[in-house]
Amino acid sequence: MNILVLGAAGMIGRKLVERLSREGSLGGRRIERMTLFDVVAPKAPEGVGFEVRTMAGDLSQPGQTERLVADRPDTIFHLAAIVSGEAEAEFEKGYRINLDATRNLFEAVRRSNPGYRPRIVFTSSIAVFGAPFPDDGIGDEFHHTPLTSYGTQKTIGELLLADYSRRGFLDGIGIRLPTICVRPGLPNKAASGFFSGIIREPLNGKEAVLPVADTVRHWHASPRAAIQFLVHAATLDTAPLGQRCSLTMPGLSVTVGEQIEALRRVAGDAVVARIRREPDQTVIDIVKGWPERFVAKRAEALGFRAESSFDDIIQVYIDEELGGRVPG
Amino acid sequence: MNILVLGAAGMIGRKLVERLSREGSLGGRRIERMTLFDVVAPKAPEGVGFEVRTMAGDLSQPGQTERLVADRPDTIFHLAAIVSGEAEAEFEKGYRINLDATRNLFEAVRRSNPGYRPRIVFTSSIAVFGAPFPDDGIGDEFHHTPLTSYGTQKTIGELLLADYSRRGFLDGIGIRLPTICVRPGLPNKAASGFFSGIIREPLNGKEAVLPVADTVRHWHASPRAAIQFLVHAATLDTAPLGQRCSLTMPGLSVTVGEQIEALRRVAGDAVVARIRREPDQTVIDIVKGWPERFVAKRAEALGFRAESSFDDIIQVYIDEELGGRVPG
Repeated sequence: MNILVLGAAGMIGRKLVERLSREGSLGGRRIERMTLFDVVAPKAPEGVGFEVRTMAGDLSQPGQTERLVADRPDTIFHLAAIVSGEAEAEFEKGYRINLDATRNLFEAVRRSNPGYRPRIVFTSSIAVFGAPFPDDGIGDEFHHTPLTSYGTQKTIGELLLADYSRRGFLDGIGIRLPTICVRPGLPNKAASGFFSGIIREPLNGKEAVLPVADTVRHWHASPRAAIQFLVHAATLDTAPLGQRCSLTMPGLSVTVGEQIEALRRVAGDAVVARIRREPDQTVIDIVKGWPERFVAKRAEALGFRAESSFDDIIQVYIDEELGGRVPG
Repeated sequence: MNILVLGAAGMIGRKLVERLSREGSLGGRRIERMTLFDVVAPKAPEGVGFEVRTMAGDLSQPGQTERLVADRPDTIFHLAAIVSGEAEAEFEKGYRINLDATRNLFEAVRRSNPGYRPRIVFTSSIAVFGAPFPDDGIGDEFHHTPLTSYGTQKTIGELLLADYSRRGFLDGIGIRLPTICVRPGLPNKAASGFFSGIIREPLNGKEAVLPVADTVRHWHASPRAAIQFLVHAATLDTAPLGQRCSLTMPGLSVTVGEQIEALRRVAGDAVVARIRREPDQTVIDIVKGWPERFVAKRAEALGFRAESSFDDIIQVYIDEELGGRVPG
């Protein structure tokens, strides 16, 4: 089969490509070709038994999505996006990539010959929801109330995905990822960065700043769970989704305090001592509008699974990024 | 004040302009100028004490919305749309007008000098919701689940309106109109046409075809109520809306059978006898996905009011279109 990954140079994209390369197949079908696209050329996996093309470009430019679907990929992972903080700071850029490029992709597929109807896995976000929320968790029928341009753009992506799927132009599934924790590497521009930072930095011997109170509660899943969501979304039968083809993914609802206690259990007091509390009113205000807890019944019924303890989430980071060794 | 009406040649647009012309003011401010725009030049009201410009064009064409906002209208009524049936039949046209032109309008406002922040009243639709629905009515927090391209486009319009309002580029309010009943004039391309047809045609001595069962329940308001919604939306304080600036309007939930019994009370058996039952499976299937009942608490708390009986809805038609005379 032929797979296209848009946003392949990002953290999720790289981990997805690693997994697909390791397995060599998707849903029991052997991978014959993979195209990796991003704004900078993604690194090609080495020693794989299929053809790999890497391409760099701007998805919003005329003709770009047409070129990418010209060889009719069977499965398209659309992970490319301007992240929340950047989409808020750069209004036009956010709309250009998160809305226009997504629509360009769907249009390029629609305008292909009849008979071409690829599976498109679209990564949406819990940012499609904004406060105030119900106290008992956000259910599958809660309305879209984004409080950011990023959340607005992701919601529009979900709507287009559903309409294009309904019309038979493509076979779409949208997955609303929890906040991914623990993100490896350097901090990105996301305002949610501290959720990972307070675990990752101390584990790497560095100080981390915690800008909010320990009582702040949020919704997490590991990068490994996120990749499993993508693979499952690419291979499940979409018929049971009906015309509601975007799903809130399962996750784990924990407070910052619970994150820190998990870190203490896994790595000890000395590591936890590297967290410095420095309240930042701007971040505090942003985080107030964020969801705390979901009831992801539909996704769970369809077989999507996340971690059930934050200790497990930390362990995934230690396994994948630190070679399995808990540092002192 | 300066008012711009987009879609001024449509049924709602004409009735809005009639009312504004009669009153000469909006929210206590004297109207000095009104621009009426549509795909065909709207008829200018006669004998009014303010300047009227009429213009025809295509809102999706480059520069069109910029020209329309160049004189900085204080209030913009955005009623222009490709209706549901047509947006379904003509995919590209629907997106071009219902999505691109709406976005062009918001962009033209955003790109105007800082300090310009008009009230924009955007007519959305209950088509932003699609079955399955809760049995006890669709509340203000039910999610967007459009089952048509039109509903998708209106939902996207609501999302853009909210984001542009939040960013301070405009002062938006979206109103989700019930099905307007009784629509005057000739049938349009809307699949909902029969809800009006079974009242209007018999009252005008003509036969009407009823393609669905008498048990079909739907959500109605008169054209007069719709105009009052628009005027109220243009003049109320939008601060209490917070970042949820689109509202389901109040309406009346009745079955087709209840519509017919109201017609019998108002106009008698001979008029009702002009309704011919001719089931049409296509219409039956479409209508299955339509909402039956809303709980429009937010709009009611903000002072929006619809009719409380279908007899009243019929009477509005008789008053406005038949000179107050109930035909035999």
